[in-house]
Amino acid sequence: MSAHVATQEMPAQKKARVPLNGVNTPALFATIDVVRQQPQLADFRFRAKGRWIAGTHMQTTMSSFTGAGGDHTHKVAYTADADHPAVLCGEDEGPTPVEYLLHSLAACLTAGIANIAAARGVTLHEVESTLEGDIDLRGILGLSDEVRNGFSAVRVNFAVKGDAPAAKLQEIVDQARARSAVFDILTNGVPVSIDVKV
Amino acid sequence: MSAHVATQEMPAQKKARVPLNGVNTPALFATIDVVRQQPQLADFRFRAKGRWIAGTHMQTTMSSFTGAGGDHTHKVAYTADADHPAVLCGEDEGPTPVEYLLHSLAACLTAGIANIAAARGVTLHEVESTLEGDIDLRGILGLSDEVRNGFSAVRVNFAVKGDAPAAKLQEIVDQARARSAVFDILTNGVPVSIDVKV
Repeated sequence: MSAHVATQEMPAQKKARVPLNGVNTPALFATIDVVRQQPQLADFRFRAKGRWIAGTHMQTTMSSFTGAGGDHTHKVAYTADADHPAVLCGEDEGPTPVEYLLHSLAACLTAGIANIAAARGVTLHEVESTLEGDIDLRGILGLSDEVRNGFSAVRVNFAVKGDAPAAKLQEIVDQARARSAVFDILTNGVPVSIDVKV
Repeated sequence: MSAHVATQEMPAQKKARVPLNGVNTPALFATIDVVRQQPQLADFRFRAKGRWIAGTHMQTTMSSFTGAGGDHTHKVAYTADADHPAVLCGEDEGPTPVEYLLHSLAACLTAGIANIAAARGVTLHEVESTLEGDIDLRGILGLSDEVRNGFSAVRVNFAVKGDAPAAKLQEIVDQARARSAVFDILTNGVPVSIDVKV
């Protein structure tokens, strides 16, 4: 999730903004202008509802969220299954939770790249990413108190092709990272509260 | 992702371990015993491959990972689509990246609850979760340098029903949090490197 388009980066003399890369660039800039005038529209709350199925298999539904001064529903109630793989005694009925973290990061950065390229007038041809996360499972298996539970490191590799010099494509990726919600959360952390009703 | 079963928590006198909650408890304990003897088996590397489609819409494929001394493939190559919603100028072809973060957290904690309950001999009937994440989009929209890009807070609410006193169910959730890979990553952060090939 990342729109990333700081107006101070735009040329002083406005060029005609046209949709590009499948991004409705005029609508994106108009949205930013509206939020600048009414900052309370920027307050969003996203939601997910999880349901245990069996073993380590569960399913999450993502159907609605709040923001821009109102409630919204996705055009369908999206679901995602997760499970542990067979080697970790699961039934492999879906990707693992940590693979979804990698997906979330790839998705946020890729959306940012597309938006920023459109805002800067750069036509993209291809944006591919490969992500890796290293984890020592002695943490979650309770076999070591010196090993953390989560990833020790995450690596993202982008291959970007577009109608711009290499340096400009690199700048677009840099700006996507600089304004990525998920990159911020993963690298800086976020307070998480857990309440239980039993 | 969380197996969470520290042997020191088990009774000194071993009870017969039987599958419970869809968790193959004997296999889980056997796995932990093997990793205790051969710690290098705990080194895992998870992967995801992202592909931009159009606008802010992309798709990730999660098909293989490395661990337990070898390479593994999921029983199918799982895919997940992500997009921005219409109110943020996307086509809403999938959940947003940040909703997937919530899903990842729900999935990891829920799997942990199921594994730990099984290890402790507790039959579960229901594990439901609702998650919320608050975000001020002035960060990613480039409208404020004082607002972070990511969530300011995440709240998880579990409803757990099972054949155990409330205190024991609460302890199971507490242990799931204490050994959750995703909870650790989200609350403590992880180093992320981004390389670009243009």
